[in-house]
Amino acid sequence: MKVSADVRAMIERRKQNYTLEAPFYTSEPIFALDIDAIFRRHWIQVAVEPDVPEPGDYVTVEIGDDSILIVRDDDMRVRAFHNVCRHRGARLCNTGKGSLGNIVCPYHSWTYSLNGDLMFAEHMGEQFERCKHSLKAVHVENLAGLIFICLAEQPPADFAVMRAAMEPYLLPHDLAGCKIAASIDIIEEGNWKLTMENNRECYHCVANHPELTISLYEYGFGYQRTPANEEGMAAFETTVARRTAQWEAMQLPSAEIERLADLVTGFRTQRLPLDRDGESQTLDAKVASKKLLGGLKHADLGGLSFWTQPNSWHHFMSDHIVSFSVIPLSAGKTLVRTKWLVHKDAREGIDYDVDNLTAVWRATNDQDRALVEYSQRGARSSAYEPGPYSPFTEGLVEKFCEWYIGRLADYDANPRAVHDEKVVSFVR
Amino acid sequence: MKVSADVRAMIERRKQNYTLEAPFYTSEPIFALDIDAIFRRHWIQVAVEPDVPEPGDYVTVEIGDDSILIVRDDDMRVRAFHNVCRHRGARLCNTGKGSLGNIVCPYHSWTYSLNGDLMFAEHMGEQFERCKHSLKAVHVENLAGLIFICLAEQPPADFAVMRAAMEPYLLPHDLAGCKIAASIDIIEEGNWKLTMENNRECYHCVANHPELTISLYEYGFGYQRTPANEEGMAAFETTVARRTAQWEAMQLPSAEIERLADLVTGFRTQRLPLDRDGESQTLDAKVASKKLLGGLKHADLGGLSFWTQPNSWHHFMSDHIVSFSVIPLSAGKTLVRTKWLVHKDAREGIDYDVDNLTAVWRATNDQDRALVEYSQRGARSSAYEPGPYSPFTEGLVEKFCEWYIGRLADYDANPRAVHDEKVVSFVR
Amino acid sequence: MKVSADVRAMIERRKQNYTLEAPFYTSEPIFALDIDAIFRRHWIQVAVEPDVPEPGDYVTVEIGDDSILIVRDDDMRVRAFHNVCRHRGARLCNTGKGSLGNIVCPYHSWTYSLNGDLMFAEHMGEQFERCKHSLKAVHVENLAGLIFICLAEQPPADFAVMRAAMEPYLLPHDLAGCKIAASIDIIEEGNWKLTMENNRECYHCVANHPELTISLYEYGFGYQRTPANEEGMAAFETTVARRTAQWEAMQLPSAEIERLADLVTGFRTQRLPLDRDGESQTLDAKVASKKLLGGLKHADLGGLSFWTQPNSWHHFMSDHIVSFSVIPLSAGKTLVRTKWLVHKDAREGIDYDVDNLTAVWRATNDQDRALVEYSQRGARSSAYEPGPYSPFTEGLVEKFCEWYIGRLADYDANPRAVHDEKVVSFVR
Repeated sequence: MKVSADVRAMIERRKQNYTLEAPFYTSEPIFALDIDAIFRRHWIQVAVEPDVPEPGDYVTVEIGDDSILIVRDDDMRVRAFHNVCRHRGARLCNTGKGSLGNIVCPYHSWTYSLNGDLMFAEHMGEQFERCKHSLKAVHVENLAGLIFICLAEQPPADFAVMRAAMEPYLLPHDLAGCKIAASIDIIEEGNWKLTMENNRECYHCVANHPELTISLYEYGFGYQRTPANEEGMAAFETTVARRTAQWEAMQLPSAEIERLADLVTGFRTQRLPLDRDGESQTLDAKVASKKLLGGLKHADLGGLSFWTQPNSWHHFMSDHIVSFSVIPLSAGKTLVRTKWLVHKDAREGIDYDVDNLTAVWRATNDQDRALVEYSQRGARSSAYEPGPYSPFTEGLVEKFCEWYIGRLADYDANPRAVHDEKVVSFVR
Repeated sequence: MKVSADVRAMIERRKQNYTLEAPFYTSEPIFALDIDAIFRRHWIQVAVEPDVPEPGDYVTVEIGDDSILIVRDDDMRVRAFHNVCRHRGARLCNTGKGSLGNIVCPYHSWTYSLNGDLMFAEHMGEQFERCKHSLKAVHVENLAGLIFICLAEQPPADFAVMRAAMEPYLLPHDLAGCKIAASIDIIEEGNWKLTMENNRECYHCVANHPELTISLYEYGFGYQRTPANEEGMAAFETTVARRTAQWEAMQLPSAEIERLADLVTGFRTQRLPLDRDGESQTLDAKVASKKLLGGLKHADLGGLSFWTQPNSWHHFMSDHIVSFSVIPLSAGKTLVRTKWLVHKDAREGIDYDVDNLTAVWRATNDQDRALVEYSQRGARSSAYEPGPYSPFTEGLVEKFCEWYIGRLADYDANPRAVHDEKVVSFVR
Repeated sequence: MKVSADVRAMIERRKQNYTLEAPFYTSEPIFALDIDAIFRRHWIQVAVEPDVPEPGDYVTVEIGDDSILIVRDDDMRVRAFHNVCRHRGARLCNTGKGSLGNIVCPYHSWTYSLNGDLMFAEHMGEQFERCKHSLKAVHVENLAGLIFICLAEQPPADFAVMRAAMEPYLLPHDLAGCKIAASIDIIEEGNWKLTMENNRECYHCVANHPELTISLYEYGFGYQRTPANEEGMAAFETTVARRTAQWEAMQLPSAEIERLADLVTGFRTQRLPLDRDGESQTLDAKVASKKLLGGLKHADLGGLSFWTQPNSWHHFMSDHIVSFSVIPLSAGKTLVRTKWLVHKDAREGIDYDVDNLTAVWRATNDQDRALVEYSQRGARSSAYEPGPYSPFTEGLVEKFCEWYIGRLADYDANPRAVHDEKVVSFVR
């Protein structure tokens, strides 16, 4: 796919610390560019290890028109394939999740092993070369239980930087030893970047998120200091310094790492204390699951957040993890998939209650959905023009936009298609 | 937006007294042109004063992708703004109507006064210039209680011509002193111009509108004289002359004014007698509301009709007003918004009954919707070709088409965009 | 419509014995080309005589944006017209079937005779030439009760070849003497060519069609010989030879005729025995209607199949006929219309039971719908690439693709539009 001259001009003239021009949110051709330049060339967080606990377990994920089959093979390795039969092109697995022995096409029963080899195809004659008709593999990485895929032939190499930085933070919460207690998909009638921008600031929290701000300090993303909030902010900063020192002494890394815009595989992390002496992001700020994760011994470990470019964020508490994966559906439609994970031995109804576990983020997601939708409607207006970000509370939104525009510019300079340039051009 | 060569050729070769070529009804690019050339450059009738009786009352109207906020300010002046926050672009008011003190963005609480000034925006720092972030105003005119907006920077100046001509006709019915007794939106699966063309003739009335033709003379838009109708037409003409003289003597202007095609702000008006010695457009041709409008003393004032280009028509009777506003949604989808107004002191259930008040036009609108939809289906056919208008009964349809084609030609000669040429081009 | 350079390149590089490139299944511009090059230039099977048994009976069929009115006139001749009024272009008949005396436009009552002449149009003045405003006729052919239409001005002349070959096969089953016992429309979320390809092989039958394979031999479309099936295939071939000789001796032509790819009006036919000494395609392989068709005396006449390019297939048994017509709706959506016909004197509930009559193909159609939809999803993937057809069981799929690509190439060499080049170009 080629970047057209008008889009290139918009990339080049993008004004720092201002929202993007409207077509980045509303244009279907730019959406197709986003799929190709962002979602087919970067590491996309799409699943968690507990999605596929046993050999043969699979989930499917749709990225644009691509369906990806993520399956655990008989050697317990998580693999990813294009979910497309090499015969007549039928989609192999047509449900979102399940379990299978081999991968059998429903059309003519072509049969593939869990490592993608074509094992059996009837009526194809003696000349037919099975070995040339394996499933097409997709790159996959497992970071402390978070599954990332990359559709590019050569994925960004700096995943290793993120892995090295993040494993010490994430591994103590033992995501791989969790089970999925709840999973909810919501559709937002807005561009995926508005979903991400919404996630990268808390300027909107106090007015919109009564449930979340029970445990979340509104100061966490930065605030302009005023006489009214000076005392609160100072107290917050003191608490952060004190708790960070305590947690680090417990071998729980907590200090901020911010690599959102300077890496291809951009990310950020920080462990922050919770308000009301909170333990977890719940309505009473107490743990939602009695069984703490992994080998954790203390409930009051704050909230360890992990944000990735372009499409995910995750909150790790002592007792549960909430994991968010954003999947674009069209210029004006986005899937937000939220998973709540608890210790795999925690018992529903005894150790945890699903309603209580999910209450804060069910409410918060719905509030954010409305805000994203208001923004999308506004972006379609002929009166929309880029507006200014707050230098105090929207710095990470700017980082997201900076990363995005930079990635488009890189793509424009190096427009290598994933599989077939000619097919992609038909998307326009 | 540029008019492409093939559209320009269609504009130039348009054959008088024939329907338009099919793409004018079916093509989405031409629909985008209609929005830009017609609906963003002309005076569009969108509301009535009784929509916003008190300070802070508002309604929103969607023209293409633009949402316009129409609000009465504290000085009782009706104002119009683009319904878009100047910060992150969120839509400010997300319901069709309501009441507010200030205009507060739901996202980050940026707060605007009812005259559009940004009063308050947190966390924006000392350098931030509030005065540069007012809401974008939209031109608004109030013609005897009918609210028109214009999205162009320089609206057509000849609104003044229409105002001067029409106020004497309309003011006696005191629309500003009415209340909205009922408001119904219907969606027609057809192009907005088919809706307008349907409104501009009564050739189809006898076969399709049994309720309307109780009170409406079928001769009102012109008829070919035949032996069968000669007597009826002569009687109609005599009645018109007689009643017009009576009404004018009562200071109620009634004679036809026809400026549909020679003005940018085209319009037509005429007061016509109603059939069966009728008083009002009802099933029994009697008044639907006992409380006559304004200072009117007589029930038998016929029907004063007011038609505007491009998008409205209105029937003023002695007891009630029916007001129609047409809003295009896509090449094949159109909103028709109908409001029934009665004296603001009329009491529902005592002075008027809503079912009786609305019966004729609820039925008629639905009949017209079907006809518009049949026309739209036909226009999509490869066999469609422009067909001839009747020289006797479809003269005003021809006037509408003539005006429309003329306005496109003018736009082509002078393609000034409203806000941002580059944004609009992305609509294609 | 012009074939663009990239589509021409795909036509030219099409690899024999491989599925088509993805855009042929997924691209809306190529879909528009299919409508123009295939469905507006070839003979399309759309109805059966029993759809319109009496004068004035009509059905309407939608091909792309064209609505075609198929009506029996007072001389019992089946005629076809564009369903578009010559006045304002309204669609004349807005229900799928019915009966009428004259054709009266619902809008302004323009009235046409059953042979398409404009008989009456009010208010058009003395100069108006009625004779220039007849309905636009569409070519129609009746092949042994199967109704074909062609939207081209000059339809393919080789319909005569198909008629000469097929009438001896079809006439003994007396379709014209049948009635429609059931008619079911289903929508498949896939390209029409995937529907046709699915119909042209039985490689998928054993794994997917338990009901159909009760009576249908899986060997009928060809199979690779293996030790496991050698005995069964030999027995099948012996049976075919024996029964063919018997049927031909009864004046029932049965031998294969295969003209799928070498004629513009491509077709194939063959009568094959049914499994389990079967009489009909039913769940017990027995006749579904006690009243045999026409003058047929024997129940065990196997299944006479008739396949046409581009859009139909039909199974004629001794007791009933199943007729399938495929109508493309968009690149990814296709209508499959199935009609079950029995002798017109057969009594429902006594001679036949509708559930029993339709059971096999209701189930089979739904199974095929799923397979077509899996294929469509796969074709949208960036990982899709043309896959190999089995040389043993998918030879007729290859014939379909060969015919299709050949017809596009012919169109490209000779791009004559049906009605109006300029209108058609707006579809893109």
